[in-house]
Formats: sequence, structure tokens, C-alpha cells
Amino acid sequence: MSVFRPAIDRMAGYAPGEQPQDTGWVKLNTNENPYPPSPRVIDAIRRTAEGRLNIYPDPHATAFRRTAAALFNVDPEWILPANGSDENLTIITRSFCDAGQSIGYPYPSYVLYESLAQIQDCGVVRLRLNSQWQWDKAKAAELRRSLRVFYVPNPNSPTGTLWSADQLTELLPEKGVLVLDEAYGDFCSKPHRGELLKDARFENRLVVTRTFSKSYSLAGIRFGFAIAHPSLIDGMRKVKDSYNCDAISIAAATAALEDQAWMEANRQKIIATRGRLATALAGMGFCVHPSEANFIWVTHPTGHHREIYEQLKERRILVRYMRFPDGNPDGSMLDGLRITIGTDAEIDRVLAVLPDVIAQATADAT
Amino acid sequence: MSVFRPAIDRMAGYAPGEQPQDTGWVKLNTNENPYPPSPRVIDAIRRTAEGRLNIYPDPHATAFRRTAAALFNVDPEWILPANGSDENLTIITRSFCDAGQSIGYPYPSYVLYESLAQIQDCGVVRLRLNSQWQWDKAKAAELRRSLRVFYVPNPNSPTGTLWSADQLTELLPEKGVLVLDEAYGDFCSKPHRGELLKDARFENRLVVTRTFSKSYSLAGIRFGFAIAHPSLIDGMRKVKDSYNCDAISIAAATAALEDQAWMEANRQKIIATRGRLATALAGMGFCVHPSEANFIWVTHPTGHHREIYEQLKERRILVRYMRFPDGNPDGSMLDGLRITIGTDAEIDRVLAVLPDVIAQATADAT
Repeated sequence: MSVFRPAIDRMAGYAPGEQPQDTGWVKLNTNENPYPPSPRVIDAIRRTAEGRLNIYPDPHATAFRRTAAALFNVDPEWILPANGSDENLTIITRSFCDAGQSIGYPYPSYVLYESLAQIQDCGVVRLRLNSQWQWDKAKAAELRRSLRVFYVPNPNSPTGTLWSADQLTELLPEKGVLVLDEAYGDFCSKPHRGELLKDARFENRLVVTRTFSKSYSLAGIRFGFAIAHPSLIDGMRKVKDSYNCDAISIAAATAALEDQAWMEANRQKIIATRGRLATALAGMGFCVHPSEANFIWVTHPTGHHREIYEQLKERRILVRYMRFPDGNPDGSMLDGLRITIGTDAEIDRVLAVLPDVIAQATADAT
Repeated sequence: MSVFRPAIDRMAGYAPGEQPQDTGWVKLNTNENPYPPSPRVIDAIRRTAEGRLNIYPDPHATAFRRTAAALFNVDPEWILPANGSDENLTIITRSFCDAGQSIGYPYPSYVLYESLAQIQDCGVVRLRLNSQWQWDKAKAAELRRSLRVFYVPNPNSPTGTLWSADQLTELLPEKGVLVLDEAYGDFCSKPHRGELLKDARFENRLVVTRTFSKSYSLAGIRFGFAIAHPSLIDGMRKVKDSYNCDAISIAAATAALEDQAWMEANRQKIIATRGRLATALAGMGFCVHPSEANFIWVTHPTGHHREIYEQLKERRILVRYMRFPDGNPDGSMLDGLRITIGTDAEIDRVLAVLPDVIAQATADAT
């Protein structure tokens, strides 16, 4: 006899990327920022640690909300801080989609959305992308009618494809919300500053999620926030745990937002390195998709992606081997490598070993 | 048109205790520890902040689980760390209770369980306590048959009542789990060290939840953990977010566990102050219930509890005024004051103003 809900027994659980706890790796597998956070963040953490950790944190993270609101030109009531963007994605699923109803997302993309739906006992509809990583408009129009939540990473993973506001309006559920997961939003050419949220075409049914794990170099502190009309935020707040953000991460995230120059400098470095890596990989025969994120998606004409991943790993370089069982437009298996943009030195190390890695991978595969 | 699930629209949301963000309060309303955490905790936070915050934390919090497992004489597979004990209570509800099924808990007690059930669209059954804060055995035997989760804070809030293992076996659901919420477990006379979890009468369907917010003086970092048989922990892990605990809180909680002497010294001080406060309040005419937690529940023959709370608040002393609409055995309203055990100096301040507060409260009420 299982004491679990049948939905939990049925599901496998989401498998996050490898997180080796020892040092010495070139870690390009989970889209972390290779640069450290702002020194102001470290100061803020120190000050908070020496303060009153025995007392509960501000359950509304008021100071953070004010700072984030100013950056996105909204009122603080539009901001919901969370224990990582993942927590907001969980809160959204629990707020808007009942058992038996369905969520949707473009595919291939971030498969965590499926795990969240499974926990909630909801259905999942994949909006298949074509070889240009675009969706079929007629199919999108059909899905809009029934889905309760449409999750869209923008830019998308694994390719870094950025969709326009015009395109995104095609996905707004008629009786639900559109969620733009902007984990990589700061790496695109022109990050929005709230204009999207005021766009009347989204009818206040748009939720934007943001994270500190990527552009702000703070994957270790678990902090993200949602931006949406207060009519949505007020309901989502009922679903969150009272003290979902701790005193230290609130202080750290606030300090990080206040040092935009630090983030911007790292962003520029990453964008420059991304261009250099893309050019070099193309020169080695990889097919490189243009990316607006802090990673690139590449395939190799040999198709030996898993072997390349394994050969790199033997050399203490971790990239993400990804396999989407029916990821191609014709329903066939799609696989490839997603490589996070590291420092220039890290990327140089990858480029230096790749000729040998490809030769070895080809030998292994045959 | 609401885009929310009906269950979310219907509910009010849990209201946590007041958390004034300014200083200068004697804060005895949310059962925080008045003493600071171990200096080793502050060191661990500093070291982690100067480390690699740009990298994701260990999703399994391996170092913490090893330390906690040793303390409770179990294997690390028995431990599930969480972003505060609240997160584990959320995970438990989502793991074991489907919409339409029900959870139960003794009443009066911690009403958060009701909010968690409402989010999940589950029913709630209150097992009413008598004037000795004990339940009716026949009623418990009846509830065991249908409930999927039985939540039991042990010691209970608001009174600090501790139930024995023999009594707790009466609450084990036949097709579900018994959850002992041991937020205050370290303040009872003889905290268990895992014996309960090995007690065959609970048939591996017991989940114990623990927090760092009380005995370890770390409400600000949000960290808790569940202890249960791996067959339960494995399923609960599917429900948690991948990186639910941040690098800093993992390091802080591990360091706190490693300094048992620090926790034990504060525990002893709090237990001594609790005795002194109880005696003094009884001398002032309050009815004081014996407590095994870091708070005491008092009622006053005048019944002017809300006025006493307000008069104390005017003097910058916060205690918890609690009101249970049908909290008495006969179904009538029960109210009273729950006072957290502060430092001796804080308690002296309360005792010094109380005669005047009671006089004023009585005048206000008439």
C-alpha cells in the first residue's frame, strides 16, 4: 500500500544538472555566471549575518520589492520574491492550474514545467517548435483556448531563441495566464524594463519571472521574483510559504540589484565571449544556433554528442548533453550540447581540447 | 473572470505573526529564540559568502544530511532538508493528500495546516482537545480510518503540551502518515534522538519535522528538515524544488548542529526563565498552563486578553493574542495570550509593566 498520492507515485521527479561539489571543474553545464557577485552583495551578507538572525525575516521582503519595482517601473505590489525562480514556477502552477486542467510550453524547452504539472496532477501539452525554433500559429491559437498556464522561457533553452512581444501574444491563454520565464532575460540584446507588463494585449494576465542565478551571479543564494499585475500577485501570495525568503538572500538580492554596473559589465563580457565561442565552434564544423542567452546550443555533423560530452567530462569539463526523445519537428529524437558561456580562459580550454575530443568521440562511437 | 483555481479564490491565506522591521521591541510573539546563534554559524556564513555563490548549491545538502543523521541515529537517507520547516509541511501535504481527501490536526493548534490543506483543495478535520488539552480516544480512532495526514505539533502550540509516544500511536492514519511537528521539540524535558522513528508501532509512516528557527536561534535563515523512513523521504523529494536550500543556509545549519553545547546552554536558560515567568504570572492571578516549549499560554480571570495585548503593545512589548472561535470543548470561543520566553531582562520588563497593563486593560474594557 502506498501512502502517496497516485500522481506522486507515477512521476519520476525532475533531474537537475550535475553539481559536482569538488573544485577543479570547468563547469559549463547549468548556465551559471562565471564571474563572482558584486562585492556589495558580500558586504550585505556579512552585515546581515552579524545582525539578528534569530528573528524571522520580513515576510514581504519590502526593501527588495521597492528596489525591484523601481528597476521595472512598476509599484512594489507588482513584485513577488521567491526562494529561487523555481519556487515562483511552483507557486504559479499551484495558483492557476487545477488537477485535470493543462499547462503548455514550447518544445524542446525547460522540462521542469512537466514535473510541476505532474505533481499537481495536471496535463501537459507541448507546442512543438520547427527547425527554426518557431511555433505553428494555428496550433498556438488552438491551444490558447484550453490551457490554463502557458510557460515560455524567453530566451528559450536550449537554443537561446528570443521571441518578440508580437509573437508572445499568440500564446496568451483565453482563460489563464502567460508566464514568461526570463531566467536569461538580461543576456538578450535589449532587456525590457516593464514595457511588456503594461502592454494592453496581455490583459494583465502576464507573469514575468526573473532570477538572480544567472546575470547576478547568485545561483548559490536561491532568489528570484515574479512581476505581474497585483490582481495576480495577491492570489499567488496566498500560495507561498509565509517566510519563503530568508534575511540573507533578501539583503543579497537587494544589494545585487543596486549594483547594476557590476551586472552590466559581466553581461557585456559574457555576450562578447558568446560571439567568440560561436565563431570558433562554427569554424570547427559545429552547427551553432544564434543565442540571446548565456549559453549556446550546438550540434555536430557526426552526431556523436554524447561521446563528445563524455570526452569533455574526462578532461574535467562539464557541458550539458541534452536529449529530447521527440524533439525534432518530424517527431524523431533531437540531441546536442548546450554549453554555458564561461570566462574567456574556460572557453579557451574547451576550444583547445575539442579537436582531440571530437576525434576521440568519433573513435569511441565506431 | 478569475484565472485562479477556485480553491485559491475561496481561501483567505495564512496570516503570520507581526514582524516589525524596526528595532526597540520586546518581541515575544512568534517564539523566536532571544539569544544569538553560535559564533560558528556566523563564521560558516562568512566563509560561504566569500566562496562560490555564483554556483548552484548541493541539491541534496549532503554535508547537512550527514550531520543531522548522526544526531538522530539514522542514515542520511532519512533526512530531507527544506527552506524552513514550513516548506516540509507544504511538501507533506502535496505528497500525501489529494484534493477531496482530508488532513486532521488537534485543535486548538497551529492553524497553518488548514491553509496548506485549502491550497491543495483538501478537507480539514479538527480533533477537539478537552480542557486538559487531551483528545477523545474514540474520536481519534474514528478519524484514523479516513485521514491521509495527521499533523500533531509536539509540544503543541499555544499551550506547550507534550504528548507521549503511546498517545501518538492513537493518531496514526490507517492509510496515511502521522506528522510530528517538533518545532519546539528541543525545549521539552527529554528530546528524543530518533527512538520514535524506530518505534515499530508507527510502521514507517511517521514523519518528524524539525526547524532551526527556535532552539538554534536561526529564524532568519529559513531552514528545517524532515526525518522519516527513506520510502517516505524518496517520494517527498520529488515534490521539493531541486535547489530548495541555499548554500549559506546549508552551511549555517550544519555549523549550528555541530555546536550542540551552544544550543543546549540557551535551551537551559530558556527553560529556567520559563519557570520563573510561569510562577510570577500565576502570582499575578493568571491561569498558566504547564509548558514544554519556549512559550507559555496564559489566560486572565478578567478575560481582557485583547486589551492586555494592546496595552503591552503600546509599551513596545509584543505578545501573541490568540483567538480560536470554537476553541473550547463546548464549542465556545477561546482566547488568551501566548508569551514567548525571552531573556530574563525582557521578561522582567513584562513583569514590571503588567500590574499597570492589567489595570488599564480592565479600564479600557469597561
